[in-house]
Amino acid sequence: MTQLLRGHNLMVSADGFGAGEDPSSTRPFGHADPADLASWAGATASWPNRTEPGGSRGLDDHFTREFHRNIDAEIMGRGKFGPQRGPWEDLSWQGWWGDEPPFRTPVFVLTHHVRPSFSLGGTTFHFLEAGPAEALTRAKEAAAGRDVRLGGGPSTVRAFFEAGLIDTLHVAVAPVRLGRGQRLWNAPEDFGDGYHHESVPSPSGVVHHLYWRR
Amino acid sequence: MTQLLRGHNLMVSADGFGAGEDPSSTRPFGHADPADLASWAGATASWPNRTEPGGSRGLDDHFTREFHRNIDAEIMGRGKFGPQRGPWEDLSWQGWWGDEPPFRTPVFVLTHHVRPSFSLGGTTFHFLEAGPAEALTRAKEAAAGRDVRLGGGPSTVRAFFEAGLIDTLHVAVAPVRLGRGQRLWNAPEDFGDGYHHESVPSPSGVVHHLYWRR
Repeated sequence: MTQLLRGHNLMVSADGFGAGEDPSSTRPFGHADPADLASWAGATASWPNRTEPGGSRGLDDHFTREFHRNIDAEIMGRGKFGPQRGPWEDLSWQGWWGDEPPFRTPVFVLTHHVRPSFSLGGTTFHFLEAGPAEALTRAKEAAAGRDVRLGGGPSTVRAFFEAGLIDTLHVAVAPVRLGRGQRLWNAPEDFGDGYHHESVPSPSGVVHHLYWRR
Repeated sequence: MTQLLRGHNLMVSADGFGAGEDPSSTRPFGHADPADLASWAGATASWPNRTEPGGSRGLDDHFTREFHRNIDAEIMGRGKFGPQRGPWEDLSWQGWWGDEPPFRTPVFVLTHHVRPSFSLGGTTFHFLEAGPAEALTRAKEAAAGRDVRLGGGPSTVRAFFEAGLIDTLHVAVAPVRLGRGQRLWNAPEDFGDGYHHESVPSPSGVVHHLYWRR
């Protein structure tokens, strides 16, 4: 089986931002309210962070389910791991996810400032100074035949997309405008030279955009 | 985890028929051309019968993928297993699927005419004279904690739906009219008292209908 690089549940505002301005240790999405972007996913039965039974089993549920399916490594940019920039001043920072990060696989954090790997509740974070192609090679080795998830944020997704390394990409556009922040795209139609693109409106109000390699 | 009864990829014409008239040993869908109903699924990367690499990875692919996910038993009506009616005259009949049926789990065939179980390429067929509730109990035991697929045909799906035993149901309506045959419904909107219903048009031309228990 071919190993794929897959992006899932990337959440973007109607005006194209994947996160707001000025993220901090308590506000991973900066000025944006994460609920505005993520409530469609939190309402589904298959949402990885769901702690209670219940949840919808309609279209959106099919997308949240993809997060863990046949995935055994993730690549993310440093901005998804934490708000710090430059050399690490606080190595006690272990991400935004508490003691049980939802990944439960090796995670490769791309950064110019490497630090020692550490494990937390089934997830091991590795810090890698590498370009997209080299990072993908490392993550595929770690995934041992299964697929690799591209976790974001927006600039990391753009870099891998422009390098032609993404096999499938799912972006969910929420009906909210952020005005400023970290931009993924100007418009979904302008994204993805050399990729198929489908736009699927959900009854929940989000629009799912699917891209896959031609 | 709750064990669910799930119907997937049930294929229906725009005028509500799941199969045509007069099925035979060489024409499981009777006068209907199965390609008219199933080509959307056959085009996807995850179609269980796919023998070559490739295939689309858009919306439709998310649905075909559900066929095997967390399923470890199937229930089907006798009409899905074969064209014979009444007492078995030909026990050499082993279904329409050749030496490698796509199920690869226990399959419970509901019939008033039981015959001995047999195994074929990873699938074991059992023949059961039982109502929907009893059949579901048997299939859940066999699935050992995983979910049970309801395979069809139309009258079997209706019987389980009307008994309130289905947890989730996915029906794909193809843009073709059959005029006569085995009817699932008059209209998707009239189906499913006590169920949520979402209608999701696919760029491929089929419309996916999703039902789940309130």
